[in-house]
Amino acid sequence: MATPVKVYGPPLSTAVCRVIACLLEKDVEFQLISLNMAKGDHKKPDFLKIQPFGQVPAFQDEKISLFESRAICRYVCENYPEKGNKGLFGTNPLAKASIDQWLEAEGQSFNPPSSALVFQLALAPRMNIKQDEVVIKQNEEKLAKVLDVYEKRLGESRFLAGDEFSLADLSHLPNAHYLVNATDRGEILTSRDNVGRWWGEISNRDSWKKVVDMQKQQHSP
Amino acid sequence: MATPVKVYGPPLSTAVCRVIACLLEKDVEFQLISLNMAKGDHKKPDFLKIQPFGQVPAFQDEKISLFESRAICRYVCENYPEKGNKGLFGTNPLAKASIDQWLEAEGQSFNPPSSALVFQLALAPRMNIKQDEVVIKQNEEKLAKVLDVYEKRLGESRFLAGDEFSLADLSHLPNAHYLVNATDRGEILTSRDNVGRWWGEISNRDSWKKVVDMQKQQHSP
Repeated sequence: MATPVKVYGPPLSTAVCRVIACLLEKDVEFQLISLNMAKGDHKKPDFLKIQPFGQVPAFQDEKISLFESRAICRYVCENYPEKGNKGLFGTNPLAKASIDQWLEAEGQSFNPPSSALVFQLALAPRMNIKQDEVVIKQNEEKLAKVLDVYEKRLGESRFLAGDEFSLADLSHLPNAHYLVNATDRGEILTSRDNVGRWWGEISNRDSWKKVVDMQKQQHSP
Repeated sequence: MATPVKVYGPPLSTAVCRVIACLLEKDVEFQLISLNMAKGDHKKPDFLKIQPFGQVPAFQDEKISLFESRAICRYVCENYPEKGNKGLFGTNPLAKASIDQWLEAEGQSFNPPSSALVFQLALAPRMNIKQDEVVIKQNEEKLAKVLDVYEKRLGESRFLAGDEFSLADLSHLPNAHYLVNATDRGEILTSRDNVGRWWGEISNRDSWKKVVDMQKQQHSP
């Protein structure tokens, strides 16, 4: 049996969840090494060797160390083409390019406002940081515009890149999950017919339910 | 002779420049269709069919329409492996993963603060928009932290992903160019020994000099 790949970082991190969801879809065995970020494990010299920005996740297998969640996901799909969900990153160059385009849209257009909202609405109160109403309003407006584009796209196509669930859809799960389940603004997704239908479908995949279970276990004593 | 690929958008746009630089490195013939954004060409229905967010660039060849500059660059490299700079996106899976990791670092860590600074320092004054000193200060601090990581990396490695110039380096050129040549804060790059050496080397490539010439032509009457 192959040595499990290693993922460094807590499953409460959205970027760590993105990688875990991908590994579960691809049925690639992994070992989760849950850094204690409160104690600064992610800023220690040994960790900085594999993640020079001092962020999570980091990834290691027998061949390579990598950081950046979306780059890790692409590598996992390319390195294990025959494992698990074989179509997660497409099965031909054109399908792959279309998935990559929507994966970039997630990283460039969906992620910035949704991350800002998750921080302001879900994390700031727990961390006793004052919420910034201007930032919340600006990012709600930005995210609404992005989701208007998604609404149209998902009226023409079952998933973002076509008829099949792909890495592009998967990459939205971590922030969308917190928006719907840890803030009072989930309607920004669920009130849109096509986006709501899509969210229901992608969040009910077994792989994502396992990620949510891992998050709950981390919360438990 | 193959039909040239089409790139939609003005060469003054940083994202358009990223794609043009890639096409020049790969020696792929292209036709630039320079939208008039002041007249709202990028919001017209025909354009929205290929770029639903109403942004630039968009890309078309005989097989596919694509948006998102970094996804377009990856596609160009994958679709023309034997043309021009054959190593631009690596020549084996591990080199490719390393390039992709640093390309993501550009998109996620370098691009947000550098874009904000270019907008505030170079574009806002020309558009008679008041500069926001708080935003400038915050983004200078963010970019400095990112460049501290680059400084260390570029002390160990000639280019970001290894010994060869790659898509990861190329992707930094558009914002770095404006920071150095259109603002008074270029020292954030040039004052760092390794980053400055790297910037000098990548900005002196023939492909990039051609992009800068195209920008100048657009400025001329």
